[in-house]
Parts: sequence; structure tokens; C-alpha cells
Amino acid sequence: MTTDTLPSYVRGEWWTPVDSGSLSLSPVLSERQRVEVKGTEVRDASTGEVVTRVSTEGLDLAGVLDYARSVGQQSLAALTFHQRALLLKQFALALTERKEELYEVSARTGATKTDSWVDIDGGIGVLFAYSGKGRRELPNSHVYVDGPVEPLSKDGSFLGRHVYTTLPGVAVQINAFNFPVWGPLEKFAPAFLAGMPTVIKPATPTGYLSEAMVRILVESGLLPEGSLQLVSGSVPTLFEHLRLGDVVGFTGSASTAEMLRGHAAVQTGGVRFTAETDSINASVLGTDAIQGTPEFDAYVRQLVIEMTTKAGQKCTAIRRAIVPAASADAVIDAVRARIEAKTVVGDPRAEGVTMGPLASTAQRDEVHRQVQKLVDGGGRIVIGGVDEPEVVQADGSTGPAPDGAFVSPVLLRFDDADAEAVNTVEAFGPVSSLITYDTIAEAADIVARGGGSLVTSIATHDPAQAVALATRIAPFNGRMLLLDRDGARASTGHGSPMPGLVHGGPGRAGGGEELGGIRAVLHHMQRTAIQGSPEMLTALTGIWHAGASANAGDRHPFRKSLAELRIGDRISSDAREVTLDDIETFAHFTGDTFYAHMDEESAAANPFFPGRVAHGYLLVSWAAGLFVDPEPGPVLANYGLENLRFVTPVSPGDSIRVDLTAKQITPRETDEYGEVRWDAVIRNQDDEIVATYDVLTLVSKEAAAA
Amino acid sequence: MTTDTLPSYVRGEWWTPVDSGSLSLSPVLSERQRVEVKGTEVRDASTGEVVTRVSTEGLDLAGVLDYARSVGQQSLAALTFHQRALLLKQFALALTERKEELYEVSARTGATKTDSWVDIDGGIGVLFAYSGKGRRELPNSHVYVDGPVEPLSKDGSFLGRHVYTTLPGVAVQINAFNFPVWGPLEKFAPAFLAGMPTVIKPATPTGYLSEAMVRILVESGLLPEGSLQLVSGSVPTLFEHLRLGDVVGFTGSASTAEMLRGHAAVQTGGVRFTAETDSINASVLGTDAIQGTPEFDAYVRQLVIEMTTKAGQKCTAIRRAIVPAASADAVIDAVRARIEAKTVVGDPRAEGVTMGPLASTAQRDEVHRQVQKLVDGGGRIVIGGVDEPEVVQADGSTGPAPDGAFVSPVLLRFDDADAEAVNTVEAFGPVSSLITYDTIAEAADIVARGGGSLVTSIATHDPAQAVALATRIAPFNGRMLLLDRDGARASTGHGSPMPGLVHGGPGRAGGGEELGGIRAVLHHMQRTAIQGSPEMLTALTGIWHAGASANAGDRHPFRKSLAELRIGDRISSDAREVTLDDIETFAHFTGDTFYAHMDEESAAANPFFPGRVAHGYLLVSWAAGLFVDPEPGPVLANYGLENLRFVTPVSPGDSIRVDLTAKQITPRETDEYGEVRWDAVIRNQDDEIVATYDVLTLVSKEAAAA
Repeated sequence: MTTDTLPSYVRGEWWTPVDSGSLSLSPVLSERQRVEVKGTEVRDASTGEVVTRVSTEGLDLAGVLDYARSVGQQSLAALTFHQRALLLKQFALALTERKEELYEVSARTGATKTDSWVDIDGGIGVLFAYSGKGRRELPNSHVYVDGPVEPLSKDGSFLGRHVYTTLPGVAVQINAFNFPVWGPLEKFAPAFLAGMPTVIKPATPTGYLSEAMVRILVESGLLPEGSLQLVSGSVPTLFEHLRLGDVVGFTGSASTAEMLRGHAAVQTGGVRFTAETDSINASVLGTDAIQGTPEFDAYVRQLVIEMTTKAGQKCTAIRRAIVPAASADAVIDAVRARIEAKTVVGDPRAEGVTMGPLASTAQRDEVHRQVQKLVDGGGRIVIGGVDEPEVVQADGSTGPAPDGAFVSPVLLRFDDADAEAVNTVEAFGPVSSLITYDTIAEAADIVARGGGSLVTSIATHDPAQAVALATRIAPFNGRMLLLDRDGARASTGHGSPMPGLVHGGPGRAGGGEELGGIRAVLHHMQRTAIQGSPEMLTALTGIWHAGASANAGDRHPFRKSLAELRIGDRISSDAREVTLDDIETFAHFTGDTFYAHMDEESAAANPFFPGRVAHGYLLVSWAAGLFVDPEPGPVLANYGLENLRFVTPVSPGDSIRVDLTAKQITPRETDEYGEVRWDAVIRNQDDEIVATYDVLTLVSKEAAAA
Repeated sequence: MTTDTLPSYVRGEWWTPVDSGSLSLSPVLSERQRVEVKGTEVRDASTGEVVTRVSTEGLDLAGVLDYARSVGQQSLAALTFHQRALLLKQFALALTERKEELYEVSARTGATKTDSWVDIDGGIGVLFAYSGKGRRELPNSHVYVDGPVEPLSKDGSFLGRHVYTTLPGVAVQINAFNFPVWGPLEKFAPAFLAGMPTVIKPATPTGYLSEAMVRILVESGLLPEGSLQLVSGSVPTLFEHLRLGDVVGFTGSASTAEMLRGHAAVQTGGVRFTAETDSINASVLGTDAIQGTPEFDAYVRQLVIEMTTKAGQKCTAIRRAIVPAASADAVIDAVRARIEAKTVVGDPRAEGVTMGPLASTAQRDEVHRQVQKLVDGGGRIVIGGVDEPEVVQADGSTGPAPDGAFVSPVLLRFDDADAEAVNTVEAFGPVSSLITYDTIAEAADIVARGGGSLVTSIATHDPAQAVALATRIAPFNGRMLLLDRDGARASTGHGSPMPGLVHGGPGRAGGGEELGGIRAVLHHMQRTAIQGSPEMLTALTGIWHAGASANAGDRHPFRKSLAELRIGDRISSDAREVTLDDIETFAHFTGDTFYAHMDEESAAANPFFPGRVAHGYLLVSWAAGLFVDPEPGPVLANYGLENLRFVTPVSPGDSIRVDLTAKQITPRETDEYGEVRWDAVIRNQDDEIVATYDVLTLVSKEAAAA
């Protein structure tokens, strides 16, 4: 922001339009597109002062995309999931260190400290969350395996499996103005983890805050080449340059989403288009949650928070408060009282201000128009209004500020729940409408009339009511929050998308999905079914498949460090006979005297046992005794076990042996050890499978470390 | 097929256009739409005889859809996943019993016995597969839980989780002509399992076979009311009647998919549109797979099968044979020899015929046009040709049959791998093109030029080559088959989608996903993130969540039958001290003398242990001793264990106790018992968590059964 025109960060360097004559954009621009790229001035939301101007005049957009697809793809492909995840953490630390700079810039967009916290710390939090999830939930490699083996032949020589591989293109973000830090970061984190380079296209009114964030990342020196670019300004020809393998993540209005989605690149070109559009979200007060209950209080508190945070400029904000007819007046009174007690509108840089202006005077005028539509559509304003408010200015004085984009919180009331306006018109500001219902079915119908929402919350302490309502409305929502006294204190709030939870919704909400942990990473990858022999599936997935070659070798695999161990390394144990005496010894030692082990007659009467049988835990414990190598070595600990199934019972006189085969090796980036998953199969003297499971161990990277 | 006009099955009864004057379709039809609904005659593929005619004149399509959304949704909602899965098996049995009728009808479409087997037995196989998967992989309830708990607060009072609920609309199928039985059934099975009613719209040329299949299902009396309807004929106004909550599964040409996808119902109305379009699939011969290797032979055999099965009318057929330049002539010679030896073109009702006609003379003419385009685009015909073939007629005589839709297998060769035609033009018949490559990177590039495919196969015995090629082309394919000597014998084939594997592909292939086991069921459901207290999540999911209320009760939960047991029923055990003597006893009994249990000094040197510690398996075995109720009762067996994690080591002198809580109850529909999953938590004397896992048991439905 030291330049007049906001820079872009493209092809590894900062770029500002200098030669306004040269237009390398192709195809040739229409007059309207020419105006768009030429750009516009951007103003402080509270004061109207010019902050910067944006322009993409002369930008080689095709070159930007190609740079991502070549250099960006290559530098990310050189990193594993875990290495990318570690970088996300370092990005988060770099931003944390300089976040005060971002807070300062953020105030110019109209954001209060709390608003900025949601945007800035919230965005950094997404990076931390994906860093953790990437290392915990993804393998330390490049291919993600989805679901179990699908057997395709009786003899096991031909198998099926699903893998995800990185899409070969670029992830282009088209962002909304309301979260200039969180918005880009919540899309960047999963794309980066997936191995896709990103191009950020912020919204014009607040793009200077996105630029400040990107600048910190660039200056950190941590970004892999080509993994992140920033285009500050309009890109009207973007879709002409997109192709199969590219992804667009759009956040904004439903009408813009519709226009972009209709482009041939999406319709026939195979470009993935994910939209997250503001929706007519709802919050339902349960019939049990009458005045005086903790749920009533939590409902009102949450409604006021959603109306006033970011001055209501959140696609997840509550637009419809759906309450029992009997509680309507009490809700309105409580909301009014809370707004009067808590809400101070003004310049966020002034002391005591709790709600800032909208992002621009254009937005303010738009909100006024939408409120008028709601009134025309049957709404009565019961709290606040659209008159120019008296606001606290930066110097602490109070008065009108016509150059600032200020509005007051507004609550409307609709007597007719069928009114089209209340279910379709969105005023993207501190504006909600109250609707009443009589039955749960009616409340569910009203929610559904929103045509698909990002989120609906339900305040009730009655699980039956919660289930009745939630199961009806779930198909119309991307997220639902069940608010009761047990969870209210720790609730993350109706309006806050969480990194681990899906953000997006059907229909009006755009039909897309973002976040949701690893789910969003996979949205940047292609799922492919793979068929082949166990050997081939092992090679492709890096996971040993039963039937692939195994190596008994000359050394016990527990004597091999992570550096020496290979997928398929195996120890095949000797056999050991199980006697009745062993079963009794184990029963008395453990206290597990279940009749199937102790009483021949009762055991034989059980549909699954031929008579007394060995304890399943005896078999697993003995198997460990059969495969373990007891001396200190690279194997440090058995930290768990998965998917244990007892297949054939073991009777006294049977013997068991075990094959233990290295199945998956996951070195940790920041530790001196890693995880080894072993395939364990216990068989009896007739070669029947007795039990199968995975043994999870920690193994040193180097032999010396043991 | 006893009527002149093919009936539809709508709103619970058979319907045939009788009064061609009344048109209740709305909106008012255009002239073209009027012609479409009036319908057309359908002819025998070999003889040209009229089989039937189709028409939807006067059909109340809106009524059909509403019937599905009301009656169909309701009757399916009354069934659990397992109950629906069981019905799928019964449908499969009903079809199996009368499948000879279907084979007879199928021959009229031009299908040989083998072709019919793929279509009819293949379709029945999908029902069986989904019946099994539904009961094994879905809960016996209505809500599917996706992924683990997402902790949202430190104290565990507010959690997140994802659920899938049934979409509230109708699943409309728009099918292709080539698989009139398999096509409808592979879409019906997952929709039915998800709880969505289906409307089948077959393709006109072979709709009479779909009708015969639906007739068997209807006559079985097994179909829940409204769960399946059939519209025999054209539905040009379909999309006008669709809305949020509906799903369209389209199979057919890329151009039709594009037109339908562009409709406002999809673009802005939230209707889900899944397309599976024929694509320019490839089969790559590895550089190691030279003549004389098993992979070369398997490659050639597969190529000829894909060219001639269904006379090449498969969206998964191999259109591009991509082979090393050095092997090109050998491949062509081997393909020619195999076709000459194995392929007899004719009426499938005649003895010895191995390849039937195309579905219609219109299709034959279309294939001729596309072959011409390939020739014009640089292809040379090296096997076969487009001259009218001599074919075996129904009476066994050989000669031309101009009224039948016969063509010969055709292989073209392209010298220029960059030729646009070979990568974009599809002749939907027994037609493939051969392209040569020099390097693996080049082969990968050629595959990618198809713009997204349903399937690519790779014949190689070299895992490194397979991985190098597969990881490059995976993002361009919905499925990949790795063909080598180990898997070739059992291979299910390049062209065969399997119920457990995803069918669909990116870009040109339509961008959709069908099948893939439970994945396809979930495509008919909405994923929603749920936030709330443990109590609320337990109520909504039917799975006990840590922090929700638990009931210690007055009876041991092992004494409760499935009918009596409730989620949250718990046994909290007494504590038991672990001595060094116990550890030594266990070590010598099991043979597990790992140093961490036996040698204080070495154990203390291990980064994870304070000194000698108890075996993890000792703790789990003791826990069973602590919670078990030994006398015969409803709990029949412990059949497994999942997600075991050892969290805190246990030293001599520590004591352990265990809480076992009923977590999920899954009664089986056809057995006298069901599955109970128990949440197990072992804690030490300081209340620290020592280990967590799930115990899996089988429990009798009724107390008496024990």
C-alpha cells in the first residue's frame, strides 16, 4: 500500500500496471471488460478516504495461469502431503508474527477488533488446522487411498481400490469482500495441501487487506515457487483461459455464481466450479425454549451476534428468525434490549464501537434497497430503521457520517410465513426477519423455503424435537447447529464455519462444499478406481496388498530402521499349540471367565462355537509373543491396533501361527521416528484364517537412534 | 409387448396413451416437443421388423414426479437401509427367476448371449452387490454418519460431526440404449438404498427390454409403492418439473449432457445432475510388453473383446490403442488374426454368431459417418471396413442384410498422435484407432488429450512403468486397469464397470460418478455438518458420543437383549492393580518378552516409557476380565475390536479400570441377533486415559434366544 495502485503478485514478482497502453490480455476485450480491467478507486469504509486503486490493465492472465500449472505444480509435486502440511504451519506462524499490521489495515475495511479477529486469526487458524490434519490424516506421500480393497476375484489375484491424485491445473479463487484474509486462506490451505497452486482474486473493496496478507507470506520466503499468486483487480476473461484440471472456488452472490457456472469451460470443459453463495439462513427457536430457559437466552444472544458481527456482512448470518408464535414478542423485546445495551455503531478505530460500517457506500445503498424490498414484501420494521444513523467517529464525537457506509441493525417481522420476500430477499447487512410457526412441520417447511442454506441453527433442550426438526431440514442445509444449555457455553456460533466441518450448502447456497477437513483437500484431487494385481496396487498406493510378494529376508523386520524397512518385509512365526490348560490359565489371570472359554456344554450351545474356545485376546497376545523380537532395536512401541476381526474360533489342541508384514511406512517430518502399519494374519494348523488385524508401531528412522 | 404401444408404469399402474387428443403436459409444448412425445416405431436390430412403438402423448409427467416425491419418499422412509438392501436381493432373485424372458427380448436389440449376459446378469449382479454392501457397510437406520467426531471445544461439551440424509426428491434416470437392463438397475440400486424413488426413462431403441425388466419387478409385488416408475418414451419438458432435492442420472452423448446441464433447474435450481458420457478411452501397451509376453497377449485379447462386445456400443470401449512404435505392426497383425479367428457377425439368434448388429440402422449410419471423420482426420483403415458386410442370418444363411444394422470391426491407424480426430471423434461401434508413442511421457500426453475418460488400461509387467504412467494419467480417468500376467486371468475387463468401483470420469466423460459401492448411495443424500452437545449428536446419529449421559443401571448390560439394551447403557468396572509379577507372568505366558516389559534400564531409555510397563495386550485382556459378565446370556461373542490406541503407559503399581458403554446397536434383519459396538475406555488411578477402543459383539435380539 505504498503505491497508488495495488500491486499483484504474479510469476514470482510484484507487478503493477505501468504501461496502460499495452494490453496483452487475449481474447480482445469488450468495452465493458476494458472498463473492468482499468479498475477503480477503493475507499475507507468509515471515512470515505481513498485507500488505493486496483487495476489489471496489461496483466498477462494466461501467463499467470500457465506459471501456476507449470512451475507451481512442479514445486508442489516435489513435496509430500506432510511437507506441505508443515509449510502451512510455518505460513501461520509468519502471519501470526505480523498480524498487528493486518489488524491495522483491516480497520479501514470497517472491521472492528472482533471482526478482524474472526477474519485474521480465523484465517490463520485454518492454516494451523490443515497443518495438523494433513499430518495426522494423510499419508506422507502423494497419493491418497480412499476406502477399502474391493475384491474382484475369488483367488485374490485381481483387486480394486480407489486413489486420489492431484488435479494437474490451477486453483483459482474468486473471493467475496467480507473476509479478505480468512476467505483466501480457507481456500488456499486445502488446495496447497492437495498440491495445487493457487491464484487469489480478491474482491475490489477490500483487496488491499488480502494484498497485505499475501505480502507477509511472500516476504516470509517460505512459499514454494508458483504455489501462490495474487491478482489485485478484475479478470473478466478468466474463464476463457481455464481448462480441464483447473478448479474455481467462488464466493459471492448467487447471480454471479450462475453466470460463471454457465461458462463453457465449466459446462463442457471439465473445469470444477465450487460456489459458496450467501443464503437465506435460518435460526429456529424450539417450542420448549420459552423465555427464562437457557436456550431462549442463547438464541437471542446468538441472533444479535449474527446481526452485528461484520455488520451482518456474512453469508452465514441469520436472515430468518423462526420462532413459536407464542414467543415472538418476547424474542423481539429481548433482541431490542440486547442491541440497545451492547451495540455501538461507529468507526472501528474509535473506543467502544462494537459494530462498524458496511464495506462501502455502494453496499450501504444496496442494503437499503433490499430492506425496502422486504418491507414491500410484507415485512414490518420492529427494531431499528434505515434512517442515517448517528455514529461514533474516529475522534470519539458522535454524529452523522454520510461518507461512511453506516447502517443500524434492523429486525423486521413478517406475519405471513409464506411471503416470498422473507425467504428469498437477502439484505447483506445487519438485517434479520422474524417469522412465526405453530408446529414443527411448519417450522421445517419455512426453513426449506429458503431453497438451500449454508446453515440453520435450532435452539432446544428437547432431543426429540431436535431430531424431528433436524432430520427434516438436514437435506436443505450444509451445516446445522443444535444449541442447548449443555453446548451453548462452548458453541462456536451459528455464523462461524469451522475448518473441520463442511462449509457450503445445496441450492441457493451454491451447491458447493469447502473446508470439512480432508474433504476439501480431496475436492482438489481426482478420485480414480484402480484395478489390478496385488503387486500393481501395492506399487501404486505404497500400501502392501495381500497377495503381493512378501520378503521373509534374513533379518527380523523389527531389526530394521525406517530407512531399511521395505513394504512387504515379513516375519512368519512358528506354530504354537493352544491347550485347555492355557485357556484356563488365561481366564484366571485376566478374570475373563466367559462361559465360552470355561463351560463346554454352554459353549457348544452358543451358535458360533464348537465348544470351549480360546479367548480372542489370548490369540492376539500370543501372536505378539510369536512375532516380537525382544531386544532393544528400531521398533520403539506398539501404539495401537485396528480392524481386528476374529474369523475362526480356536479350540484346545489347535495351533496358531502368525504372518506379520510391513504394510505402510509413514516417516514423520519432525521426529526421529515414524509409523509402521503391519498386516497381521493368524492362521490355524489347517491354514484357516483365525484373525486379521493391523498392528501400529513407532519405528526409529535410523538404526543408531535405537 | 403384447400392446402396440409400449406401456409406461406410472403412479402404481400400467399406462398407455389411448386418447391422443388430450395433452395434460404443461407447459404447452412446442411443435418439436409435440413430435417427440407422439413417439416413433422401434425395430428389430437384425431384421428391421417393427417391435413396438413408444409414445408419451397425454402423460402427466408432473404427476409422475409428484407421486414419487410423496408416495415414493414416504414408503421408502418407512424402511431402514438394511430393509431396503434386503428388498434389492429379492428384486435380484425375482429377475433371476424370469431372466430367460429377458434374454429372449434382448436378442431383438442385437445382443448376443454374451452381450445379454453383461446386460441382464450384470444388472442383476448390481442388485446383489448393493444388497450385500448395504447390509455390511450401512447402519440399520436412516442416517449415515461420515467421518470421525470433530472436537470443537476443549471440554468436549460441543462437538461436530457429518451426517448424510436422504434427498427429499425423485431420482430421474435418462438412460442410453446400449444397456437397457444394467443401465437402469445400476442407477436404481443406490437410489433405492438411499431412500430415493426412481423414475426410469429408457432410450427409445431398446426401451422395450427395460419395460420387460420393470414388468417382472412390478409383477413380483415386492416394490414399495411409488419407489419405481417407468416412462416409455420422450420427456422433453422434464426439466421444467424438477426442483431442489431431485437428482438426474444421465447416460448418453456429451452434447446431450451439455444441453441438459445448462437448464436453469440445474444451473440455479439445485437439481443434481450426474452425467456419464461415452469418452475416448485408451488402452496403453507398455514398452516391456513386447510380442511373446503374457501382457502383449492379454492386451490384444482385451482390445478385440472391447471392439466386438455389444458391437463396440459401450461408453467404456477402447477407442484408442496406444502402443510403442516398435510394437505397432505386431499388434495390428495379432488383432487381425484374432478377429478373423473369433468374430462372426450376424443375427444373434443364429448359431455361432459372436457379434450382433448395432441397435438400429440409424446408429449404423452414424458410425459410418464417424469412421469417415476419422479417415478424413488422418486415419488409415488397417482392419475391416465400412462396406456392407456379409452376415449370418437367423436361418443360418449368409449374405447381406440391409435392413439390419450390421457393421464389421474396424481398426484405424494414425501416424500423427497429435491428430485431433483420433482424440475427439467417437465412432460408437466396433471401431478403434491405433496410435504409437516413443516415451512414457508421450503416452501419458496422448491419454490426456482425450479430455477426460471413463477408463484407461495399461498392460505392463513393470511396476515402475505402471506407476510412472498411472500417476500421470489418473487425474484424467475415472477408472484405470493395470493388466499384467498376475491379474489377467481374473481380470474383469477394461470395459466392465464394477458395482464396487466408481464409474464415470472427468471432462469429456461427463464429470460424474456412479457406482463405487456406498459412494453412489451418498450421491443421493445430502451431507450436512452437525454441531451440538454430545447429547444432541447422540440423539441425531443413534451413536453414543462421549460426554452424553450414560446409564449404569441396575443390571449388567451384558444381561440385556438387543430389545432391552439402549445406547448409553454402561458397566463401570472396579480397579485392579498391575504388579511387576503380573507383567512377568504375562510375558512368560505369551512369549512377549519385549524389553519394554522386561528390562528396566532399556525400557527407561525408550522415548515413550518411564521404565518397565505393562503389555498393551495385558491391559486389554484384563479390561475384558473387568467388564465381562461370565454366565450365558444375550451377548454371544466378541467378534472384533477397532481403533485401539494406547495413550498412557501403565507401570507396576498403577491400577486400571474400564468403562464400557453401548455405542451403536445394529439389529440384523434376517438373524436372531445383531451387532453391538461398545465404547471402551481404560483409565488409571489418576483418571488418565490409558487406552480407548471399540469392542464389537454379537447380541441376541430376545433374552430367550440366549
